[in-house]
Amino acid sequence: MSGLFITFEGGDGAGKTTQVELLAERLAERGLEVVRTREPGGTALGAALRDLLLHGPDASPRAGIDGEDAALPGIDARAEALLYAADRAQHVAEVVRPALARGAAVVQDRYIDSSLAYQGAGRPLDPAEIRRLSEWATDGLWPRLTVLLDVSPELAAERRARSGQRADRLEREAEEFHRRVRSGFLELAAAEPERFLVLDAARSADELHAAILARVESLLAV
Amino acid sequence: MSGLFITFEGGDGAGKTTQVELLAERLAERGLEVVRTREPGGTALGAALRDLLLHGPDASPRAGIDGEDAALPGIDARAEALLYAADRAQHVAEVVRPALARGAAVVQDRYIDSSLAYQGAGRPLDPAEIRRLSEWATDGLWPRLTVLLDVSPELAAERRARSGQRADRLEREAEEFHRRVRSGFLELAAAEPERFLVLDAARSADELHAAILARVESLLAV
Repeated sequence: MSGLFITFEGGDGAGKTTQVELLAERLAERGLEVVRTREPGGTALGAALRDLLLHGPDASPRAGIDGEDAALPGIDARAEALLYAADRAQHVAEVVRPALARGAAVVQDRYIDSSLAYQGAGRPLDPAEIRRLSEWATDGLWPRLTVLLDVSPELAAERRARSGQRADRLEREAEEFHRRVRSGFLELAAAEPERFLVLDAARSADELHAAILARVESLLAV
Repeated sequence: MSGLFITFEGGDGAGKTTQVELLAERLAERGLEVVRTREPGGTALGAALRDLLLHGPDASPRAGIDGEDAALPGIDARAEALLYAADRAQHVAEVVRPALARGAAVVQDRYIDSSLAYQGAGRPLDPAEIRRLSEWATDGLWPRLTVLLDVSPELAAERRARSGQRADRLEREAEEFHRRVRSGFLELAAAEPERFLVLDAARSADELHAAILARVESLLAV
């Protein structure tokens, strides 16, 4: 494959959407074909699965990896992990691999690292099993670069306060959960320093973009 | 677990539905709690997944394990296998394990063996990988007894002719597919003779029922 596969990871409010957009625009200006995408939900099948994961088969409100905290009531932990893996398999087969084969740059919001960090932060399953599942689902496709926008607990609390969330028991549980997710991401990054670029999400969007672009330029120059 | 887990396997037109019904009735008459169920689609989540697998996210007609032949156009083979595994994980966690824990008899139409036989009959994935996936999804739950209703190619052709299907190129491809599915089931049964009861689906419903009941009685007597 001749394309460039770049993923963005980090907790909610890290600013991933903005940075994905800025990088995609800049790469397109350079004349590259850019595929901007996301997991979960980056395909028609994935969108249907994301809907199932967030709302459940009975359409009652649920919370998942995608912005909320709680494990899915009613959905078995293994079933949940398998649905995320199915979304990922379809997305890689339908979107990512064909784009890379064409030589495109794929700029993606969340990938395997999100499953590992969120699963490790309180879900009942062994992250090593989740890693095996994702590696099977994707037939071993890993990104060339993963940008981790690291959100400190202080910044996360500030952004939640700004968005008007209550500081009650549930909120304190949420803080603890986000702390574990953050640790999970940082451990993944420490284990693969070549693949990861870790940036403090408190920096300005322009600063972050410049740092990301510098790393991507060095990859494109090789 | 104190309950009794019995699965029924075999190609389409083998008469599984009739035999599941007869056995469930007889066990209920004996005063046992009987849970009669099926895969795929034995839960609310499973029904939604079955709908996705049969009709696709765009609601175009597709064919799956459940009565038809073709691989699902548009759905990646790994994604498809993961969706069946998710259905299975949810079904085992929500229906089968709780019933067995209560001491109930679970009488089920299709389980892991169907995935193995159908996957082996022309799908691109290694059946050993499908087995690992299903074993992870179910946390290693295997039935105490699996009744294989074996449909000979002659009987299958006769039943298809009776149902008015055409004997054209597609039908000949279907015949070859069913032949491979049948071989797959017979190989699974040969590898685990203790778990399997193999019966010729050409026998009358009453004869089949009597043979199945005799085996189940011997399990209940232990």
